[in-house]
Amino acid sequence: MVYSSNLKLATAALIAGLFSLGQAYAQNQPGAVPKPPKMVPEMTEFWEPEVKTITPGTGTAAPSDAVILFDGKDLSQWKGKDGGAAKWQVKDGAMIVTKGTGAITTKQNFEDFQLHVEWSAPTEVVGNSQGRGNSGIFLQDRYEVQVLDNYNNRTYANGQAGSIYKQTPPLVNAMRKPGEWNTYDILYTAPRFKENGTLIMPARVTIIHNGVVVQNNTEIKGATEYIGLPSYKAHGKAPIQLQDHGNPVRFRNIWLREL
Amino acid sequence: MVYSSNLKLATAALIAGLFSLGQAYAQNQPGAVPKPPKMVPEMTEFWEPEVKTITPGTGTAAPSDAVILFDGKDLSQWKGKDGGAAKWQVKDGAMIVTKGTGAITTKQNFEDFQLHVEWSAPTEVVGNSQGRGNSGIFLQDRYEVQVLDNYNNRTYANGQAGSIYKQTPPLVNAMRKPGEWNTYDILYTAPRFKENGTLIMPARVTIIHNGVVVQNNTEIKGATEYIGLPSYKAHGKAPIQLQDHGNPVRFRNIWLREL
Amino acid sequence: MVYSSNLKLATAALIAGLFSLGQAYAQNQPGAVPKPPKMVPEMTEFWEPEVKTITPGTGTAAPSDAVILFDGKDLSQWKGKDGGAAKWQVKDGAMIVTKGTGAITTKQNFEDFQLHVEWSAPTEVVGNSQGRGNSGIFLQDRYEVQVLDNYNNRTYANGQAGSIYKQTPPLVNAMRKPGEWNTYDILYTAPRFKENGTLIMPARVTIIHNGVVVQNNTEIKGATEYIGLPSYKAHGKAPIQLQDHGNPVRFRNIWLREL
Amino acid sequence: MVYSSNLKLATAALIAGLFSLGQAYAQNQPGAVPKPPKMVPEMTEFWEPEVKTITPGTGTAAPSDAVILFDGKDLSQWKGKDGGAAKWQVKDGAMIVTKGTGAITTKQNFEDFQLHVEWSAPTEVVGNSQGRGNSGIFLQDRYEVQVLDNYNNRTYANGQAGSIYKQTPPLVNAMRKPGEWNTYDILYTAPRFKENGTLIMPARVTIIHNGVVVQNNTEIKGATEYIGLPSYKAHGKAPIQLQDHGNPVRFRNIWLREL
Repeated sequence: MVYSSNLKLATAALIAGLFSLGQAYAQNQPGAVPKPPKMVPEMTEFWEPEVKTITPGTGTAAPSDAVILFDGKDLSQWKGKDGGAAKWQVKDGAMIVTKGTGAITTKQNFEDFQLHVEWSAPTEVVGNSQGRGNSGIFLQDRYEVQVLDNYNNRTYANGQAGSIYKQTPPLVNAMRKPGEWNTYDILYTAPRFKENGTLIMPARVTIIHNGVVVQNNTEIKGATEYIGLPSYKAHGKAPIQLQDHGNPVRFRNIWLREL
Repeated sequence: MVYSSNLKLATAALIAGLFSLGQAYAQNQPGAVPKPPKMVPEMTEFWEPEVKTITPGTGTAAPSDAVILFDGKDLSQWKGKDGGAAKWQVKDGAMIVTKGTGAITTKQNFEDFQLHVEWSAPTEVVGNSQGRGNSGIFLQDRYEVQVLDNYNNRTYANGQAGSIYKQTPPLVNAMRKPGEWNTYDILYTAPRFKENGTLIMPARVTIIHNGVVVQNNTEIKGATEYIGLPSYKAHGKAPIQLQDHGNPVRFRNIWLREL
Repeated sequence: MVYSSNLKLATAALIAGLFSLGQAYAQNQPGAVPKPPKMVPEMTEFWEPEVKTITPGTGTAAPSDAVILFDGKDLSQWKGKDGGAAKWQVKDGAMIVTKGTGAITTKQNFEDFQLHVEWSAPTEVVGNSQGRGNSGIFLQDRYEVQVLDNYNNRTYANGQAGSIYKQTPPLVNAMRKPGEWNTYDILYTAPRFKENGTLIMPARVTIIHNGVVVQNNTEIKGATEYIGLPSYKAHGKAPIQLQDHGNPVRFRNIWLREL
Repeated sequence: MVYSSNLKLATAALIAGLFSLGQAYAQNQPGAVPKPPKMVPEMTEFWEPEVKTITPGTGTAAPSDAVILFDGKDLSQWKGKDGGAAKWQVKDGAMIVTKGTGAITTKQNFEDFQLHVEWSAPTEVVGNSQGRGNSGIFLQDRYEVQVLDNYNNRTYANGQAGSIYKQTPPLVNAMRKPGEWNTYDILYTAPRFKENGTLIMPARVTIIHNGVVVQNNTEIKGATEYIGLPSYKAHGKAPIQLQDHGNPVRFRNIWLREL
């Protein structure tokens, strides 16, 4: 019943289209150029496949289809780089980079995803440039999105918060003050490789920092290198890594949606 | 003074690099393959140009570098399609699509941008499919991001909220209930044309709907067409248009950052 | 020995670089911005991996690393669509579309490649528009590069020789006369799909027709459809198909290089 | 008259489509999902704009729409870097790099193009690595396609013939012997910049060397740098430059088609 009036409309339109088709071809004197017959609206309306429905979160809370990587309680979704337990401190709903315990990575491996992370630079300001509130989020364990306290703290442009570290600076510096919570919303498309290991499609990333776009579909140039130029080496699914750079940066509310 | 220790480090590294360069070339027996000398970290650290600092908004409030298109008070940034005053009702901090008054467009023209829009489907649910809570946001006056009440209301996939209308469905349906506020965060890169009018780079768009990505760097196929296939026609900067589809959809908190 | 003078130069440059590094940092009064130290030329010279050497062909003959798909003698590299023997006639170094025997496909499957094909429209001109000298080359068995006698024979733009059939017209019509040999040099990058079957990277194709570019890194929109709109469906490696459209089009000198 | 039978067919198909539309909607029991009505073939057949016809050249000769940059007779299309006359020797239908006279550039400026160049390394083999038969083709005066005698002469991969110099190695080494003529067929898409000078679309290039693809839609990373990393600086149309690297490399049959 729902579509009955639509049907009449569509039929009417189609018949109108039929006539205009007739006209188009009727105009075709020898040498005249045919015009494509008019379509009806329904011809560009595709009901299948049905779009999956999810429930968005309130504010920055996780939507219903997210993998919860950290909900403030424990590090059960994480492990140390040696494969053992993740040893960072968990306190007041946040995990805190605990100097000397090393980076931590998710137990799960991922390919393409939307990742939400909140982080806070230490309230006590110590050091400057790269020495202040330094950590990092390594997408697929190798492509670093920089985490750094860049509030009133200049460093090299391609090394500041929101940069693809040592590759691409953020479009703007959208930092909140030390102790306040920053949000990263990261859209990541993994690189693809040929069977012979060569790159066929580079990784791409979009980053929203505190609601402001800082990377807009940026092409990642290869695995992050502290010294020298980045390059790609074939790999499959891989975890998210959070860096221990020795500063007590805090993280909370980490969730991921596989794309 | 700040960089003096860095300088020592860099110098040490460079001298180390010098030796490793010597080694690399010393290894070059006839026929041996040269290895590139090792770089020092500072060679991939670029301080200039300095990244501009902005102040992010709280929650979804506008950041400091945004153009405020609607702050809840008046339609001073908008005009009717005929160039005259925009005639939609403003009430309780929202603008309301006022049937029969026509679409409204921004007075300013834009090219590439980040656009934040909040919208709410009418609390009183009327109609179904495309007949329920229908409006639209036309990027550069011609590429429509669909606005529709798709809460428990199925329609064609490429016509639902978050779709590039009649082109690309959203990745998921992330609607809130009628009367609740939805957010769209839209990253838009305008198409580019050659001097002769042909397309050299299609438009691209990323859309976050209520914090969930629904378009991820989607290529726009051309101007939105209700009947037939989209195509491109050269144009320059152009306004944002909000559609009057006859339903009392509300909009609020509209801001844009030029990219 | 070969690089000894290079070494001296590089060392000199590096030492010069060292000084300029010193200078850069010496300039760093409090608040001054560091400049990256100067690199030496060898730092952007990469000898490994070594580029493979091949022997190009004379004129349009196959290079040394090509798979020879047709050398004028037999159809041993081809099969019928039913999997049986290919039944087209081979005569005077060419294969001839033999009406009613059906399309033929290569026995091998391919992914990304450079394909060289020569083809000739029938000397005896019969029919017009799509009815004259019609055949086609289906990349990966589903994406058609049109073969048609468009010498003084207009048809729809996106259906003429050099088009991605029913998708993208050629940039120009570069046809030779019926009976003369046309060349197609086709650079094809296969689409890539996610594990769940959705498209992650569309196919792309560049076509040189008689030495003139007619498709320049064109995005393929999906499998060729005679009726309706193209769309993608996940697939792996697949053969080259030549179409039997009922006209005695001839093909010769077909070779392919896997990329 | 030509299309009359097509018209009948189309009409029949449309009427059939009408019925199938009816069927589609007739099937729509409450809750059923509409199917788009079937299109007719002509709906995806576009006759306008008409594709321009050109006459291809025989072999590697220029097509009818080419700008002839060098036909073997004189350097009338070229100038020196100082704006004065180009001073290279012309002999036996070729121009010869004449040491110390400097690079030459076309008088005309170009944006996107197809460029055909033939070049020959000196018959007398002198030097090795970059010292043997070195020249270069600078697209838009700044992006170098390397010209080098790499026949049995290894050098760094991203510096050999067919490379984007100091950026991307060729896919294979397809060199002919010294004294023999090599062909380059180059498809070049110029970078585009925003009004503020930032890059919006990098340059891209495809190169066919002696009939073999060596660059396949390669992204150019910026202006060629001998020392350090490439980067982009906004520019408009610009000439083709041929480099004087001190070796008597010969060029002939140079033509260009604006795209």
